[in-house]
Amino acid sequence: MTHDWKAIDEAVRVEPGKKSKLRARECVGADLLPDREVAEGALKDCAKAIDVLQDRLWAERSRALLVVLQGIDTSGKDGTVRGVFNQCGPLGVSVTAFGKPTEEELAHDYLWRVHAAVPKKGMIGVFNRSHYEDVLVAKVRGLAPKDAIEQRYDQINAFEKHLSENGVTVLKFMLHISKEEQRQRLQERLDKPEKNWKFNAGDLEDRKLWDEYQAAYETLLDRCSTEHAPWRVIPADKKWRRNAIIAAIVHGTLEEMNPRYPVVEWKPTDYVVE
Amino acid sequence: MTHDWKAIDEAVRVEPGKKSKLRARECVGADLLPDREVAEGALKDCAKAIDVLQDRLWAERSRALLVVLQGIDTSGKDGTVRGVFNQCGPLGVSVTAFGKPTEEELAHDYLWRVHAAVPKKGMIGVFNRSHYEDVLVAKVRGLAPKDAIEQRYDQINAFEKHLSENGVTVLKFMLHISKEEQRQRLQERLDKPEKNWKFNAGDLEDRKLWDEYQAAYETLLDRCSTEHAPWRVIPADKKWRRNAIIAAIVHGTLEEMNPRYPVVEWKPTDYVVE
Repeated sequence: MTHDWKAIDEAVRVEPGKKSKLRARECVGADLLPDREVAEGALKDCAKAIDVLQDRLWAERSRALLVVLQGIDTSGKDGTVRGVFNQCGPLGVSVTAFGKPTEEELAHDYLWRVHAAVPKKGMIGVFNRSHYEDVLVAKVRGLAPKDAIEQRYDQINAFEKHLSENGVTVLKFMLHISKEEQRQRLQERLDKPEKNWKFNAGDLEDRKLWDEYQAAYETLLDRCSTEHAPWRVIPADKKWRRNAIIAAIVHGTLEEMNPRYPVVEWKPTDYVVE
Repeated sequence: MTHDWKAIDEAVRVEPGKKSKLRARECVGADLLPDREVAEGALKDCAKAIDVLQDRLWAERSRALLVVLQGIDTSGKDGTVRGVFNQCGPLGVSVTAFGKPTEEELAHDYLWRVHAAVPKKGMIGVFNRSHYEDVLVAKVRGLAPKDAIEQRYDQINAFEKHLSENGVTVLKFMLHISKEEQRQRLQERLDKPEKNWKFNAGDLEDRKLWDEYQAAYETLLDRCSTEHAPWRVIPADKKWRRNAIIAAIVHGTLEEMNPRYPVVEWKPTDYVVE
């Protein structure tokens, strides 16, 4: 891992209080991490290291890590879970996909189902979509009154602050792909028979609202990148680069958390196994 | 995979309606699967194949697989999850560990929390311990009236029949280790500082009740190995043999389920991605 991951992290981070300037941000990121072989090696190393740290996190059982993945259709949320967390396996990592809310969920406030899915102490939880849909699709499609949506940014910040003050580190990644890259990925779902089942005609409707979604993303990046839970905008046109950068940031975060095996308060000689 | 997996499956299976004869069953199983290299190769192949089939299960989204892991302390339930399902990653596999019931859970019938954790369509769910604790620890420790426990075997059979009739295939594995093997594994938790945190003095109390637990296991094997959800007693003194056998059975089961990518009802040319 010879790369300057700190510089990469800084480049993708949305500085709290500053404008995110989404339109100026890289979808490709070739300068950021040019060498594919280096990236793939680093991903491998990071995935292993994440697995080791996850074991310590579980042993310590006092904190949790929440990884929020957001991005438009085909941006690679599932692929990121596979690429970054498969080494850990299902034991210490739980994945929650947030789809269209059920009737029961709609009968509660929008953070209700989200709070219920927050990883428990010792776990890494991954959100495939999240409460941010409530300021994305809800805004673009007008699923809630404007005033209510306007209030949500601060509510979300307060919610995430609450989590971070209660032992849950929150990492937020926007998987940023270009409109052309999405076109290719959707087209591939049409062209390859084994991918047909992934194609959803509704995705084309959302694609027509590309600019509106980008604007809604920009607003949430501007307003919800905080000290306790900053946003990172990940160049995601190249899957290998996306995975390597996210793995490096997850790894670095876990290293900073530095979970430790609990020190036992007894001596091994206190016990005899008969 | 040159081995006769069908014969291995038959050997570990508890024939519905017959006595399980737990005491006569192998903890080592050297004859069953002698060659470690063959076993490890097979495990690798099976783990990969399970991953592929899991993807089809998810695409099909009409059925689920529930894998129940039972076994006394140190029998290797976590290790089995890692060994067999890590290839799948956390995306299509959810793991639920059933510990001591909470107050809320105790305020409901004992299957309430179990039913809530049944994997949804498209998923593989793994139970680390399960409703069988309610005829194990509950019985040995007298946590429920005898009459009530006596009724549970039929209730559990009815519950599992219900699941199997509603698209959930139920696979049940008892990880069968010898008393000597447990001694070594507990001792290791005392001897190796990095394993100290796993040691629980309560495990020694349970170890004193070894015979009672074995008897309770034998009863549940006798009474709850059914056509729709038979028990398998897996020789688990050797981890590599345990993982290989379980992976082979999970793989064979998924192959029989034969999940398929949905056939779409439109033509790729119906759509244009603009």
